Amino acid sequence: MRSKTIEYRNNRLRIIDQRSLPKKLIYRECRNLKDAHYCIKTLAVRGAPAIGVFAAYALYVGMKDKKAAGREAFFKQLDKAAGYLKTARPTAVNLFWAIDRMQGLALKKSRLDVNRIKKAMLDEARKIHREDVSMCEQIGRNGARLIKRGDTIITHCNAGALATSGEGTALSVIYRAEREGKRVKVFTDETRPLLQGARLSAWELKRGGIDVTLICDNMAATLMRQGKIDKAIVGADRIAANGDFANKIGTYGLAVLAKEHGVPFYVAAPSSTFDFSLRTGADIPIEQRGADEVRRFAGVATAPGNVKVYNPAFDVTPNHLVSAIITEKGIFKKPCTRSLKEI
Amino acid sequence: MRSKTIEYRNNRLRIIDQRSLPKKLIYRECRNLKDAHYCIKTLAVRGAPAIGVFAAYALYVGMKDKKAAGREAFFKQLDKAAGYLKTARPTAVNLFWAIDRMQGLALKKSRLDVNRIKKAMLDEARKIHREDVSMCEQIGRNGARLIKRGDTIITHCNAGALATSGEGTALSVIYRAEREGKRVKVFTDETRPLLQGARLSAWELKRGGIDVTLICDNMAATLMRQGKIDKAIVGADRIAANGDFANKIGTYGLAVLAKEHGVPFYVAAPSSTFDFSLRTGADIPIEQRGADEVRRFAGVATAPGNVKVYNPAFDVTPNHLVSAIITEKGIFKKPCTRSLKEI
Repeated sequence: MRSKTIEYRNNRLRIIDQRSLPKKLIYRECRNLKDAHYCIKTLAVRGAPAIGVFAAYALYVGMKDKKAAGREAFFKQLDKAAGYLKTARPTAVNLFWAIDRMQGLALKKSRLDVNRIKKAMLDEARKIHREDVSMCEQIGRNGARLIKRGDTIITHCNAGALATSGEGTALSVIYRAEREGKRVKVFTDETRPLLQGARLSAWELKRGGIDVTLICDNMAATLMRQGKIDKAIVGADRIAANGDFANKIGTYGLAVLAKEHGVPFYVAAPSSTFDFSLRTGADIPIEQRGADEVRRFAGVATAPGNVKVYNPAFDVTPNHLVSAIITEKGIFKKPCTRSLKEI
Repeated sequence: MRSKTIEYRNNRLRIIDQRSLPKKLIYRECRNLKDAHYCIKTLAVRGAPAIGVFAAYALYVGMKDKKAAGREAFFKQLDKAAGYLKTARPTAVNLFWAIDRMQGLALKKSRLDVNRIKKAMLDEARKIHREDVSMCEQIGRNGARLIKRGDTIITHCNAGALATSGEGTALSVIYRAEREGKRVKVFTDETRPLLQGARLSAWELKRGGIDVTLICDNMAATLMRQGKIDKAIVGADRIAANGDFANKIGTYGLAVLAKEHGVPFYVAAPSSTFDFSLRTGADIPIEQRGADEVRRFAGVATAPGNVKVYNPAFDVTPNHLVSAIITEKGIFKKPCTRSLKEI
């Protein structure tokens, strides 16, 4: 079932264009910075870890054919390229993390000639990519310990193979538990407005042989009230130092419902999703997206064309609603500033 | 702004076909029982009070041209017609209430000749219609007392003019408060899967000059957390003797969120929505609808075509989450079996 969300081969950066799923599985080659920016902004590539891996390659792709008159000019161009890529989306910290890491590597190699710096950048992007794959595996292994045989799990948005370059974060836990013979069942929220749950999670879970049922976001509450949900697992786009985290809009509501019904609520994310420069979730910038994402669907008007819309792409869930954060480095129960210091 | 959701004129029963809104305002004539059944089942006419008024007229329309060999045959046909109409949808009690009332009236007139019984049935349907209009007005008047100047109110689904033959239940409160100069703001959930909030509430509130903003269902939580919501008002499809009530799927989740954020949660419904034969909400039958309502929109696939779907049309909210039930007969705070006995 492994779909190659991001691939770098024969000097080409290729992604699955996630806007076409589940109707068509289309690959798209990204040839330059402008296109990379467009792919992130329009969610052709999405999911915090995948955005990080993609941005690392994209920065290299954007620099590799640039003719710079010496190192100083090269670093000027690199700064500009990095700054530009960072404007694609504001919330997922992995974008900034990956770009900063690529720039830091280049600086560390600044005594080499420009071609060697470029080569080192490609090596670093590949390293970030490999680390992401093994991070997914490790999160799956750690998280599966929390899953009991026969558990029914609810998830929101897509924190799966399509959101990473491995098996995902939240969904990696599910894939792993299934391989361990735990026979889990999954409900996936469709996740309005862009339907990542319906279009992406339902698609990849089904391909992965998982027993998955699709619901509208507003149906989770009644399932919980009926006692049909044992656990909730979601991904994260940025986690503050105290364990508050941003994730796809609707996550906070799901967390409140989980608390009300005594359902454990888990967040699965790599350590690169932590932003220790932010004390609490109140400091996380939340992306606001266009009104037509809510007013229209697939070209069809679903509301009066001129009605006002509020469309935040993310919300923030406070740490007290989180039972544990599952990372590649281990499980952090009741996350708070102190417990997260280990990372 | 008064749109004629249901109209009986010149021997014709006409409705707004709500499936075409907001794109087109199409009227549809209903000529027989089969068509009436179809209109209710496919939500061409919807909203508990509107279904009641429509069913009353439809039963008359279904009977008026029937040639019965005497009274006995007439009452046999009437029983059959009533039984058939009642199978259109299971949850909203107003359907059964209106049909029972029409049958009861016919029985009361059973000494008259058949043509006179038919005439009495039309008079009764018109009476139900008039009562519905004045019920809306009275609910608006009663409910507006709970609204403060400048309040921001969230609503779910459509409990407006399109759900009744007057100004609505929940939305009647809003229209009335606005006319009283309270300058309210409204957020309407789009209300997946059939988008009654986006298609109908946003449409009629905008036409009614109300400051309305559309959100996806999963955005209500973050608005409440930001302190942007003062009150929640919804309609109801059936209210049990203890004050538990069924309403459009997503209502229960909204009520949990309201409680978590200290937002008063009001239900606005006519006394015909009460079903005192049911002790609690657990006894209310919940309609399950087709999977393609969730998997597709307007002919466009939004999920893998063969993915399993759970699609209950309603959920049940327990009485302890309800601040008050607003009826045409008054406001019932903290509804419970005892407090509702007055009705």
